[in-house]
Amino acid sequence: AVVATELRCQCLKTISRIDFKTIQSLKVTPPGPHCTQTEVIATIKDGQEVCLDPEAPLVRRIIQKILNK
Amino acid sequence: AVVATELRCQCLKTISRIDFKTIQSLKVTPPGPHCTQTEVIATIKDGQEVCLDPEAPLVRRIIQKILNK
Repeated sequence: AVVATELRCQCLKTISRIDFKTIQSLKVTPPGPHCTQTEVIATIKDGQEVCLDPEAPLVRRIIQKILNK
Repeated sequence: AVVATELRCQCLKTISRIDFKTIQSLKVTPPGPHCTQTEVIATIKDGQEVCLDPEAPLVRRIIQKILNK
C-alpha cells in the first residue's frame, strides 16, 4: 500500500491482513483537517510502512493483542 | 513524560488520562528486542510526544474511539 505525504491522507490503499510478528509499530491517526478517514499505518520490521484497514476485524484484534502484551 | 531514544524503551513515565481532542496520532509499539514493554506514544496537536499507559482503561477506550470514527 502506498503511503503519501503528510498533508493529505497517507493511505491510498489498505490491506486487511498482516502477520502480527512482522509489526514493529502501529500508528493510528484519527480523522483531521488533512484527512477525513482514520488511518492505521504499520511499520514492519524491514522498515517498510503498510496501510491497514481500520475496520478489518484482524487489524482490531492485532491492536488489542499488542495492548494486552 | 520523557521520550528516550529508539534503542531502548521510549517511555520512562506514562500518564493514564489525556484529552482525546488533543491527539494527532498514536503510536503503539509491541515489546521487542529493544524494550520489554508495550509502549503507546501520543503525538499531540502541538507536536509534543506523550507516553500513555497501555493498560489504562481510558487509553484503550481512546484507541477504540479512533478506530470507530
